[in-house]
Amino acid sequence: MVYLTKRFHFSASHRLYRKELSDKENEKIYGKCSNPNGHGHNYILEVTVTGEPDPQTGYIMDLSRFKEIVRSELIEKIDHKNLNSDVDFMKGIVPTSENIVTVFWKVLKHKISFNNIKLHSLKLFETENNIVEYKGK
Amino acid sequence: MVYLTKRFHFSASHRLYRKELSDKENEKIYGKCSNPNGHGHNYILEVTVTGEPDPQTGYIMDLSRFKEIVRSELIEKIDHKNLNSDVDFMKGIVPTSENIVTVFWKVLKHKISFNNIKLHSLKLFETENNIVEYKGK
Amino acid sequence: MVYLTKRFHFSASHRLYRKELSDKENEKIYGKCSNPNGHGHNYILEVTVTGEPDPQTGYIMDLSRFKEIVRSELIEKIDHKNLNSDVDFMKGIVPTSENIVTVFWKVLKHKISFNNIKLHSLKLFETENNIVEYKGK
Amino acid sequence: MVYLTKRFHFSASHRLYRKELSDKENEKIYGKCSNPNGHGHNYILEVTVTGEPDPQTGYIMDLSRFKEIVRSELIEKIDHKNLNSDVDFMKGIVPTSENIVTVFWKVLKHKISFNNIKLHSLKLFETENNIVEYKGK
Amino acid sequence: MVYLTKRFHFSASHRLYRKELSDKENEKIYGKCSNPNGHGHNYILEVTVTGEPDPQTGYIMDLSRFKEIVRSELIEKIDHKNLNSDVDFMKGIVPTSENIVTVFWKVLKHKISFNNIKLHSLKLFETENNIVEYKGK
Amino acid sequence: MVYLTKRFHFSASHRLYRKELSDKENEKIYGKCSNPNGHGHNYILEVTVTGEPDPQTGYIMDLSRFKEIVRSELIEKIDHKNLNSDVDFMKGIVPTSENIVTVFWKVLKHKISFNNIKLHSLKLFETENNIVEYKGK
Repeated sequence: MVYLTKRFHFSASHRLYRKELSDKENEKIYGKCSNPNGHGHNYILEVTVTGEPDPQTGYIMDLSRFKEIVRSELIEKIDHKNLNSDVDFMKGIVPTSENIVTVFWKVLKHKISFNNIKLHSLKLFETENNIVEYKGK
Repeated sequence: MVYLTKRFHFSASHRLYRKELSDKENEKIYGKCSNPNGHGHNYILEVTVTGEPDPQTGYIMDLSRFKEIVRSELIEKIDHKNLNSDVDFMKGIVPTSENIVTVFWKVLKHKISFNNIKLHSLKLFETENNIVEYKGK
Repeated sequence: MVYLTKRFHFSASHRLYRKELSDKENEKIYGKCSNPNGHGHNYILEVTVTGEPDPQTGYIMDLSRFKEIVRSELIEKIDHKNLNSDVDFMKGIVPTSENIVTVFWKVLKHKISFNNIKLHSLKLFETENNIVEYKGK
Repeated sequence: MVYLTKRFHFSASHRLYRKELSDKENEKIYGKCSNPNGHGHNYILEVTVTGEPDPQTGYIMDLSRFKEIVRSELIEKIDHKNLNSDVDFMKGIVPTSENIVTVFWKVLKHKISFNNIKLHSLKLFETENNIVEYKGK
Repeated sequence: MVYLTKRFHFSASHRLYRKELSDKENEKIYGKCSNPNGHGHNYILEVTVTGEPDPQTGYIMDLSRFKEIVRSELIEKIDHKNLNSDVDFMKGIVPTSENIVTVFWKVLKHKISFNNIKLHSLKLFETENNIVEYKGK
Repeated sequence: MVYLTKRFHFSASHRLYRKELSDKENEKIYGKCSNPNGHGHNYILEVTVTGEPDPQTGYIMDLSRFKEIVRSELIEKIDHKNLNSDVDFMKGIVPTSENIVTVFWKVLKHKISFNNIKLHSLKLFETENNIVEYKGK
């Protein structure tokens, strides 16, 4: 089993808040991340799949196809977007890194699993110092 | 003359658009950067001052003071903010990197110039691949 | 289960040696790391905790609190210090990266474990090319 | 058990192709990576061993010895080389990252295993965005 | 005047040698860089232009157009190529970093100069430790 | 004229203080950098020379020779050392980054200047956020 990882970049804005709470309550929970007009990040997402290299090609998976799937299913829908209002699969979800990474897992899981390939982990860098990882369980 | 640079990080959202234009016209000029709900970045700002080291202390400028000035005059006003709506000195200005860096220059210039120290340049990284620099003229 | 990692920076000096050995013997074992007057590093420490995101907040753990605990319990005691002589919990321990990371584990383990949160791993970068990781067993 | 990782750099050229196929067929499978005259990368290889720190030295393994083994057994044979034609243990193998990392495992496994030390993983960065990892099974 | 820089990545192979010299003589001059079957790098190229921001758009130059020019005129011709044999404008030139950067200058200079915009510098990273810069004179 | 830069790494300890002052006075000026037992850094030094590429070799300067001069004249004397006590040319000098870089200039200037090559600048990274540069005047 070899683990194959591709890194993707996207720039997005978000605001951490729950609409049933007041601005004051949201600030207590989310601090400056609850600023009403939002803020943003250059996110990095590492997508890791695992499988056995094909003895003919030497590939676990064609890299261009891997890249194309993640770009069309995920990155194009979130890059240069507002994660609170512009992204269908984020609707109603507080866009903490923890929630983002588990939602992305659901989006990608069935798109990127084939005979011999399995989605293994997603690692999201909100900044270079704040990182979350999810492995599907 | 020695050049002393400190790097600062801030996360902000912005939208590139001019309010006198339609969404379509803005998209033609600014592409996906004109998305109506904005997007965001982890900006890095390098502030460089120049001067002669004090023969006693070996410092051009006390680093803590340097950091404190830039933080209180600039970073605290832009970090975790929306550059279109939350920042007084950005009001009415299209927040392209070019405009941001020339406005920041005006904000910092007189705060960070002393007897022997001069603001030399500001370098802004919107992403690691898009960079602008300004030297005051 | 989501893994949440924060990176911390600290600058410290150290000398690798055992006081029962001669300088020559220490140099044989530790090479230039046993230089009698010490040397130093910009260390990076990645602290990873694991838990389930709170369904209300979307957080595993409040990031500010996480940061505050690691800063007050650990970073403030080691940053800009000499690891051989200035740090209580390092007394009598040869400050190799392996020893540092297992000692830090003991320091942090009970401070950062709560109902649903567990310290998962510590990863220490002495330089960008020398890295140790410890998972508590 | 502590995990100890060292990063190594090497610059090499390669071409992805199978000699029984035409240039056209190779291009279909390997895209621009099958360019007949090859291309190249600054590869980074992370070698991780695991073991218990020696209670006397505080080391899992002497770092200089670790470095020396990996350099003489592996890096000197691949650095500034063509991976298709210049490297004995790569002969007849399509130099995809997946294949490179599993071949390197065989080269290093018995050279770097001692009483208390085991090769744990190899992580190969072809570029900062394309990464493979292998743990020996 | 604002300086605007974009970073581009390309992966290429090369061999440093002069065909009128023997392999031995080439090795004396170029060391392991003269390995007959070549080696390769992940190059990074920083292209910097300078000009005054347009008071309407806030741009020196439309970033997409900038990117498109450099990609079509330069990057597509060198990425995943052999710099000795595959690139028209490199024919007959020893592909040292110094020569690469001055040739690239000639390729880009007239393509990227407009009314108010001037090519200011090219900075080429062969590795993160070997860097050349050229400003056209 | 092409600018050629090589990056060098060294790990050293230092303490910022003047011996004619009390610990309290030193702390007032140098803050935690005056900790009596010192602290340390992984410094990065960028050495830039400038010249015209030799039309035969395509080199400004043989890279191995460049590296060898800087290593033997400078890096070997400061790496894994204490900058206050172990380095001849730093004796009596407060090892601020400003002072380090101007002293290094004197050490290297005459060693690295040849017919067509001139030392152009030294850039010292104490951390990735604190940077000084000196150009000899």
